[in-house]
Amino acid sequence: MTEPSDDFEQMWRDLAPLGRSATSGGYNRAPYTSVESELRAWFMEQCAARGLEVEADGNGNLIAWWTVPNERHGDRAETGADHGAEHGGLSGVLIGSHLDSVPDGGAYDGPLGVVSSLAALDVLRDRGVVPSRPIAVDAFAEEEGSRFGIACLGSRLASGAITPEAAAELRDRDGMPLLDAMAAVGVQPTLGRATWLDRIGSFVELHVEQGRDLVDRDAPVGLATGIWPHGRYRFDFTGAANHAGTTRMEDRRDPMLSFAMTALAASEQAQLTDQRATFGRMDVAPNGTNAIPSRVTAWLDARCDTETELMRLVAEIKRQGIERADGDGTRLEVTAESVSGEVTFDPLLTSTLRAGLADRWGELPVIPTMAGHDAGILAAAGVATAMMFVRNPTGVSHSPQEHAEMTDCLAGVVALADALEVLV
Amino acid sequence: MTEPSDDFEQMWRDLAPLGRSATSGGYNRAPYTSVESELRAWFMEQCAARGLEVEADGNGNLIAWWTVPNERHGDRAETGADHGAEHGGLSGVLIGSHLDSVPDGGAYDGPLGVVSSLAALDVLRDRGVVPSRPIAVDAFAEEEGSRFGIACLGSRLASGAITPEAAAELRDRDGMPLLDAMAAVGVQPTLGRATWLDRIGSFVELHVEQGRDLVDRDAPVGLATGIWPHGRYRFDFTGAANHAGTTRMEDRRDPMLSFAMTALAASEQAQLTDQRATFGRMDVAPNGTNAIPSRVTAWLDARCDTETELMRLVAEIKRQGIERADGDGTRLEVTAESVSGEVTFDPLLTSTLRAGLADRWGELPVIPTMAGHDAGILAAAGVATAMMFVRNPTGVSHSPQEHAEMTDCLAGVVALADALEVLV
Repeated sequence: MTEPSDDFEQMWRDLAPLGRSATSGGYNRAPYTSVESELRAWFMEQCAARGLEVEADGNGNLIAWWTVPNERHGDRAETGADHGAEHGGLSGVLIGSHLDSVPDGGAYDGPLGVVSSLAALDVLRDRGVVPSRPIAVDAFAEEEGSRFGIACLGSRLASGAITPEAAAELRDRDGMPLLDAMAAVGVQPTLGRATWLDRIGSFVELHVEQGRDLVDRDAPVGLATGIWPHGRYRFDFTGAANHAGTTRMEDRRDPMLSFAMTALAASEQAQLTDQRATFGRMDVAPNGTNAIPSRVTAWLDARCDTETELMRLVAEIKRQGIERADGDGTRLEVTAESVSGEVTFDPLLTSTLRAGLADRWGELPVIPTMAGHDAGILAAAGVATAMMFVRNPTGVSHSPQEHAEMTDCLAGVVALADALEVLV
Repeated sequence: MTEPSDDFEQMWRDLAPLGRSATSGGYNRAPYTSVESELRAWFMEQCAARGLEVEADGNGNLIAWWTVPNERHGDRAETGADHGAEHGGLSGVLIGSHLDSVPDGGAYDGPLGVVSSLAALDVLRDRGVVPSRPIAVDAFAEEEGSRFGIACLGSRLASGAITPEAAAELRDRDGMPLLDAMAAVGVQPTLGRATWLDRIGSFVELHVEQGRDLVDRDAPVGLATGIWPHGRYRFDFTGAANHAGTTRMEDRRDPMLSFAMTALAASEQAQLTDQRATFGRMDVAPNGTNAIPSRVTAWLDARCDTETELMRLVAEIKRQGIERADGDGTRLEVTAESVSGEVTFDPLLTSTLRAGLADRWGELPVIPTMAGHDAGILAAAGVATAMMFVRNPTGVSHSPQEHAEMTDCLAGVVALADALEVLV
């Protein structure tokens, strides 16, 4: 068994300080910031050291190609720029994940997939494997949607799931447009469907598990069945600003109260049906201690096992919110900012991997996930997609406490290399 | 009757654009910002044009003195710097208010008192009144507490109600210390009890009413009985950040839910007993759409008719908050950031003014206020203090909709000039 430990651990140490909060130990790796520029530079350096050719697609995504040696493909001329058709039409295998984090997030969500992919290539080369089709490693942009509000923004743009025009309208919390933010860190924006996608036939995204299914099954690594339907909905509660001291309680139109009841209702509704509903982000105006707010905006993150159930859950939360707003003399408007339908990963690809990996890994668990991923976007765009999870001892994610044991991370690298051997 | 309209209206027009939001029409006049520097410069210019000598007290407050002509006081030498003792021990009369606003606040709260005070001096001079004691016009700093969290910070420092050491610890929302903020706009900070206070015997603060009592009584101007006890309390709810999608509802420790129930409880408790309780300001961490918050901080503004009732109300809200937090697996800590006891304005001063103004104004209404003011701080410091309110047709304050009719504003100027005639 090839040992990927040195390479992996060195890369992990290199990344550890980037964007780390000294107070919480969490990570702040928002897209198109100086920290993310360092992460991108690190990725390009690692790719250069491995002879990979990095392609920047104008959507913020980086795709690093392993140029397959000429001799494997007869006398066809081949350059680094001609990957796809030259392999007798063999489409490439994409691995990788993303480098950005939620605010004060964990170290593993995203970077584990990128680092494991680079380490898996090393394992493959140590094993002497010469792939018969192209392999690419990706670092997708703004997967978390933490800055511009749309999760998987990079892969959505590359696959055409969001139009360049719609994306160009996006602004961050300070009002900076996406294109300006990209340009500010030297990313040349040319938004829109990416040609690299035409050269990709399958995608295997490795990710830290965000739950404890693998703990329960006593397995370091597993595969995914699919992704729950989920969405982000902006709840704008508007009332009337007024003096917090002089305004009688019965004369108020206080949107904070309408929000508060809606947040409790959302939690109760989700509990009733074993779904998920979260209000984790808020913006209050004018946000002064001695002023009744004029507006409270809060974002609902909702996830359900079926699309019908997601629609029902959001509609019910909205109904209760409007009912309370009516009583409070406030108004509630709900805007769906991004909604992702149910994703079922490619059953053939998943079963092929499961069978191909059985010698070393036995029967790999196949588990669902309630989290969105770029893999879901590419699956919806017609790419045969699978996901591989690495055990998370606490299940905690999007938090400084997110963790995976090093032995499990290294198992993930080997499993990913095994998967590549099956596919290339 | 002297007509103050031209002077007043010109000053009002001069101030109108400063810090005005083009979108809401509200005002953002936080202390120690470029906007507030313009307001201070405007004040000093107006004082200079009137021959007033402006004193900056190192706490951010500006006190402009009307130097009384020598001939009124026999052969005693008198300079602008020697106001107090030279008037045979006659202490001065302070008028004025503040220039800062809450975020997205109104045009009247504060500036109406300052502009009316300057205009009242003009009326007095037009009438040929030569005061027998000094008159000073103030512009107090950070009355709203919108930046450093302590309401009436300037008058508290000047009167010793907060120590320089405690004030030096204050930081704004971006972590900037008070002293740095002052220095950044060229205010030389020398915090601490101000000597000008020794030369002041009485204070009349004119203010837009923040309620509709004068509307109900059909009066353009009224006097105040006192100020309700009130306080600001920081509620820190801490839980555990985690992934909004993958974390089961029953596994969460979500501080947003604990806050939501507490906000509803606060409103209900205040309604039950006709008091005031408001959560208008919040700070959520990490404030990401797809992360359960690790911390929700919210500020309670509470006001009651007695101090006992205030303590009872806050204790009850805290009790219910902790009860819910226990159920949610979160933790609540409550910190009193500033608490002001009950203020009764000087009954003798108020009745003197009421009697002295009866010829022109009849029986002026005397009404309570639930809002804190610098007048309350100076009253607690032993200054004989009264407040004069100008009618507010909607009662709305701390909002872009805050308003007073121009005829009522001008009535306020005349009433304030009348009050000065009674007192000097």
